[in-house]
Amino acid sequence: MSDTGSTTGETTTPAPTTITVIGLGNLGQVLARTFLDQGHQVTVWNRSQDKADELVARGATLAASPAEAVAASDLIVVCVLDYTTVRDLLTPTAAALAGRVVVNLTSGTPDPARELGAWVGKQGAAYVDGAVYAIPQTVGTPEAFVLYSGDAEAFARYRTLLETLGSAVFVGTDAGLAPVYDVAVLSGMYGMFAGFFQTVAVGGSAGIEAAKVTELLVRWLTEAIAALPGFAAEIDAGDYRTETSNLDINAVGLAHILAATKEQGVGVDLLAPLHALFERQVSQGHGAESMSRAIESLR
Amino acid sequence: MSDTGSTTGETTTPAPTTITVIGLGNLGQVLARTFLDQGHQVTVWNRSQDKADELVARGATLAASPAEAVAASDLIVVCVLDYTTVRDLLTPTAAALAGRVVVNLTSGTPDPARELGAWVGKQGAAYVDGAVYAIPQTVGTPEAFVLYSGDAEAFARYRTLLETLGSAVFVGTDAGLAPVYDVAVLSGMYGMFAGFFQTVAVGGSAGIEAAKVTELLVRWLTEAIAALPGFAAEIDAGDYRTETSNLDINAVGLAHILAATKEQGVGVDLLAPLHALFERQVSQGHGAESMSRAIESLR
Ligand SMILES: NC(=O)c1ccc[n+]([C@@H]2O[C@H](COP(=O)([O-])OP(=O)(O)OC[C@H]3O[C@@H](n4cnc5c(N)ncnc54)[C@H](OP(=O)(O)O)[C@@H]3O)[C@@H](O)[C@H]2O)c1
Ligand SMILES: NC(=O)c1ccc[n+]([C@@H]2O[C@H](COP(=O)([O-])OP(=O)(O)OC[C@H]3O[C@@H](n4cnc5c(N)ncnc54)[C@H](OP(=O)(O)O)[C@@H]3O)[C@@H](O)[C@H]2O)c1
Repeated sequence: MSDTGSTTGETTTPAPTTITVIGLGNLGQVLARTFLDQGHQVTVWNRSQDKADELVARGATLAASPAEAVAASDLIVVCVLDYTTVRDLLTPTAAALAGRVVVNLTSGTPDPARELGAWVGKQGAAYVDGAVYAIPQTVGTPEAFVLYSGDAEAFARYRTLLETLGSAVFVGTDAGLAPVYDVAVLSGMYGMFAGFFQTVAVGGSAGIEAAKVTELLVRWLTEAIAALPGFAAEIDAGDYRTETSNLDINAVGLAHILAATKEQGVGVDLLAPLHALFERQVSQGHGAESMSRAIESLR
Repeated sequence: MSDTGSTTGETTTPAPTTITVIGLGNLGQVLARTFLDQGHQVTVWNRSQDKADELVARGATLAASPAEAVAASDLIVVCVLDYTTVRDLLTPTAAALAGRVVVNLTSGTPDPARELGAWVGKQGAAYVDGAVYAIPQTVGTPEAFVLYSGDAEAFARYRTLLETLGSAVFVGTDAGLAPVYDVAVLSGMYGMFAGFFQTVAVGGSAGIEAAKVTELLVRWLTEAIAALPGFAAEIDAGDYRTETSNLDINAVGLAHILAATKEQGVGVDLLAPLHALFERQVSQGHGAESMSRAIESLR
């Protein structure tokens, strides 16, 4: 991942700084606590006030309204249910936004992120969108990472501070980019989950415990993942020549798998569309090329 | 994975032993070479004779027919295109099979494996089916593993020898079990591949290189895989209570992802069936339960 953050300005953080966290759900609470633990001056706001109790006991200031929360800090971190909620909460704070930086860690999709970024910009504030790859328990650990996009200068200013949540990966100045990556990567995760359900269903049809077949699935996926960067390189190069596992082999192999799955009395809805993708490429004469060429049927 | 192999008899191998390898394709050649390297007496046969040249130069004996190949050794390893080919090749060897062990490493599905096992048994030979989780380059390395099922005594007799190909996991005495696991695990792998294509297509729709988005996908999948054993335990227990990521959240999240994917001009055929699975469980009143409950809609 090229990380343009390091080329966009200074990464030194004025520490301690003033930070507001709006939204104290499962994730927001941990974000606020992490900032408090770093010695920053943290102001919090949440619709249900009681979720602030523990943070206030640790030294956070509870704001009476989103506008008061925004006015208290240079950096405003927002983490609520969805983008509509972000917009509803920030609208009454418009007058207080100028000169501040909004980092929105609410999960969302590209277009709403771009609209929100444009609106925040109009108020004279800088907007950074973020997609969090962590659960509350892993925030601040080496596994956690967060994708950011939007105002590169604002990101650079708070980069060191944001790194305390998890490694910070800046993916571009279009505010919608972090959500594009998010939609893309989560799609991949859901594909893996679909495969997992199929694995467990086939195993179960022969009386095999989910735990047993999953142990082997985990072992095999851990290796199979290593094939993905090679496929990606073929796709980027548009060069699908291969000596190994071509579309013909995979189309036949997957057809056998689907047939055997049906024989076991298990549905094939989750995987049949992938086979259709393979078949489309095979029927267009690309059977001897790499399986990665299936991407051409998706575009 | 419980490995019943260790409980079924002695695992000492008479070394060196006589081994026949029928089928010298990409995988079969490496199998034969690995056995030769261990100092065993190896006889080979392949439809296209020239594929035996290198092995003969290394000390293998080339048989003139499958029947001659079978007659030469105690252990017969078969690795050809498919089960039909295995059956066609072994049929004329029937008279020579009695007292030997056939280990079939050709990929296949459960029913043909059971039929082949029954036929081999009728000739007075022992049958072991195997599913290879390795590519030719990784045979004999620590990543490689092979699932075996069928005659437990025969497996135990050759276990140490088979371990030289990759770690040997015995999954049960039903010859169809290794193929069941194979269909199950490969289904999971194809699910992951489907997700990968979706990831690359969404990224590509915003001009993101496949390599860039794949780097993040690999990073996230590596962590997300860790969730699978927990889901499997919920499924085995039939206890879907959860405090964290429930079906409601995932159904809404995936719906947003599909909507954003369409906004990006990318098709959602590969993931829509998973969303339908989630929705079926939600509509049956299980929205507050674990995402793993989606398996109930697949059975
Ligand atoms: N948890 C994770 O592991 C994780 C990981 C990555 C990304 N995310 C994303 O982070 C965001 C928050 O997740 P979470 O797990 O913290 O969710 P959560 O525990 O359900 O918290 C939701 C937050 O949104 C607030 N909220 C909801 N509707 C509101 C409204 N109409 N007005 C004002 N506030 C409202 C809630 O306030 P109340 O307390 O008053 O209900 C609460 O602070 C989501 O976009 C999620 O997708 C979460
Ligand atoms: N390669 C891998 O990474 C891998 C991994 C796991 C499992 N497998 C499985 O292992 C098996 C072999 O794979 P492979 O990669 O070695 O395949 P391959 O390179 O395509 O070799 C196929 C073999 O089958 C023989 N064959 C095909 N049709 C035949 C016929 N009608 N009569 C006699 N022999 C015939 C071929 O003989 P000729 O040489 O005369 O064509 C060759 O020996 C397959 O079931 C595959 O799914 C392979």
